[in-house]
Amino acid sequence: MRATTLHGPRDIRVSEVPDPVISEPTDAIVRVYAACICGSDLWPYRGENPIREGQTIGHECIGEVVEVGSEVRDFRPGDFVIVPFCHCDNTCAHCRAGVQSACVNLDGTESGQAELARVAQADGSLVRTDADPDPARTRSLLALTDVMATGWHAAVAARVREGGTTVVVGDGAVGLCGVLAASVMGAETIIAMSRHEPRQRLARELGATHVVATRGKEGGAEVREITGGVGADAVLECVGTDAAMRTAIAVARPGATVGFVGVPHGVELPVRRMFAKNVGLAGGMAPVRRYLPELLRLVDDGRIDPGRVFDAEVPLDRVAEGYRLMDRREAIKVVVRP
Amino acid sequence: MRATTLHGPRDIRVSEVPDPVISEPTDAIVRVYAACICGSDLWPYRGENPIREGQTIGHECIGEVVEVGSEVRDFRPGDFVIVPFCHCDNTCAHCRAGVQSACVNLDGTESGQAELARVAQADGSLVRTDADPDPARTRSLLALTDVMATGWHAAVAARVREGGTTVVVGDGAVGLCGVLAASVMGAETIIAMSRHEPRQRLARELGATHVVATRGKEGGAEVREITGGVGADAVLECVGTDAAMRTAIAVARPGATVGFVGVPHGVELPVRRMFAKNVGLAGGMAPVRRYLPELLRLVDDGRIDPGRVFDAEVPLDRVAEGYRLMDRREAIKVVVRP
Repeated sequence: MRATTLHGPRDIRVSEVPDPVISEPTDAIVRVYAACICGSDLWPYRGENPIREGQTIGHECIGEVVEVGSEVRDFRPGDFVIVPFCHCDNTCAHCRAGVQSACVNLDGTESGQAELARVAQADGSLVRTDADPDPARTRSLLALTDVMATGWHAAVAARVREGGTTVVVGDGAVGLCGVLAASVMGAETIIAMSRHEPRQRLARELGATHVVATRGKEGGAEVREITGGVGADAVLECVGTDAAMRTAIAVARPGATVGFVGVPHGVELPVRRMFAKNVGLAGGMAPVRRYLPELLRLVDDGRIDPGRVFDAEVPLDRVAEGYRLMDRREAIKVVVRP
Repeated sequence: MRATTLHGPRDIRVSEVPDPVISEPTDAIVRVYAACICGSDLWPYRGENPIREGQTIGHECIGEVVEVGSEVRDFRPGDFVIVPFCHCDNTCAHCRAGVQSACVNLDGTESGQAELARVAQADGSLVRTDADPDPARTRSLLALTDVMATGWHAAVAARVREGGTTVVVGDGAVGLCGVLAASVMGAETIIAMSRHEPRQRLARELGATHVVATRGKEGGAEVREITGGVGADAVLECVGTDAAMRTAIAVARPGATVGFVGVPHGVELPVRRMFAKNVGLAGGMAPVRRYLPELLRLVDDGRIDPGRVFDAEVPLDRVAEGYRLMDRREAIKVVVRP
């Protein structure tokens, strides 16, 4: 099959690779209907994470089940499914506690940006939905596989509450989904920290009541002013850098929680400051499967339209262009169509 | 008056110093009935925190109001009061949100181990109670000024829940009070990590169902075994060292929160590990005033007896002996009587 492969920093190709096969009886093979590029794919793309030459890449997709292992009971060929980026049995103690991203059988999509993807723990991981060629719906379902569930997780972890004040640090797809999550959860004041005009506009459309375009101390001062000197009740850290984390902790009011979902790169937590301010930290890799049924219902009820974070689409053959667009921040998030 | 003063590492004395005076109209002066030595007093005592030669020390006491400023309305001379270690107005936005330790008028007891102590923000800080010469009650009230409220805060921050599993890292007075808090909150399994036989015994008496005497990886493995391989629902970090924090995070189950109340010294939070495991961190300096009414009721109802963490008592003149006992871990916590 054709699959996206990574060969070195910024050397992304479409290669012919062996089809994925059922290797465990709990596996399923999914024919990818649409996939996308994740902000976290940029770390290996940029050579900032170690890579294995020729490795497949991509972990977000939706599509049709074409084959299932002998122990898969809930899905069969022909089912249209959402594939969460992390696969789980949804039965272990951690899954039952709602932390599917720490499943004892945790696994991940190996070739999401490809014609076929292997899904481990199919019964636990997949969520069935109607096949629907509507592009807006396709994009919203794609968003559920990772970014919307991740933004939602940040909001849950930060304990966004009705009527409260939420700050979202980061204007990538996850941050924008975090704005949407806070809006659905009823936050009255939602401050998006963003310096990019098109993203600021989208943040406002998704529910942001304020935009702060400055960073660091200046940005913190602006947030304090908006919040009457108090700080935010909940902060969503959707970047993963040390600067973003420091901003997040600085704008949190005492007693607030920073919900962090950006994979940490070089983050050194200011523990004494957190202690003095009673600012907590919660979150991590999103337990996508936990939130999928609820988020799918919100999409189907027309209450959320997270597919709006996609602002570009490329066929699989031109996936490298999609990576370039995201790397240069010329696109927020890119759909890839096999 | 006579007060405990610090002159250099391990050079603690009782000196004649000027009486404290009402310097703000919201101040009160309290004649100390009983005071105590805190684990955190050992940091400057050992020279690990900067000190000012001749500084007074001590921040936990109970006693009788002898003078109030012109704006103090709720207290008058003769009132017997509990003095929380951090003083607050109990009216600002942070106090109203239950984070009195981040009060905009935050202040602290300056000379707790002395004949007289000045209390800032008397109306917001003090809690009145009956004077009672019973030594057991005296000790329990003293415990409320800091260690019991701090252990309670750790349990609240860690979200100890009825029927759940709690691990307490640290067998100092705060850790032991954390065991007691988890017990009152209904945790079914309470694992105290302690290597000291007398403290292990007291931990069991206060509610610990298990004691783990090993540390590091070995200790973590023991906790995992007790918890059926899952880890603890809630972890109380009551030490403040890097090793203690790492243990706390290691024994937490995915999705759990570490409630941390030990003042961090050299702690480097393993942020990537926290991210991968979805282990959160909450807590910090305890908002003692928030918990005082509830804790006082629990003492008066005979439901908690936190004074049991005191295992030594010295008159003020022999306060240096009290410090030595605590420094050598020969006493858990020491009462000082002016």
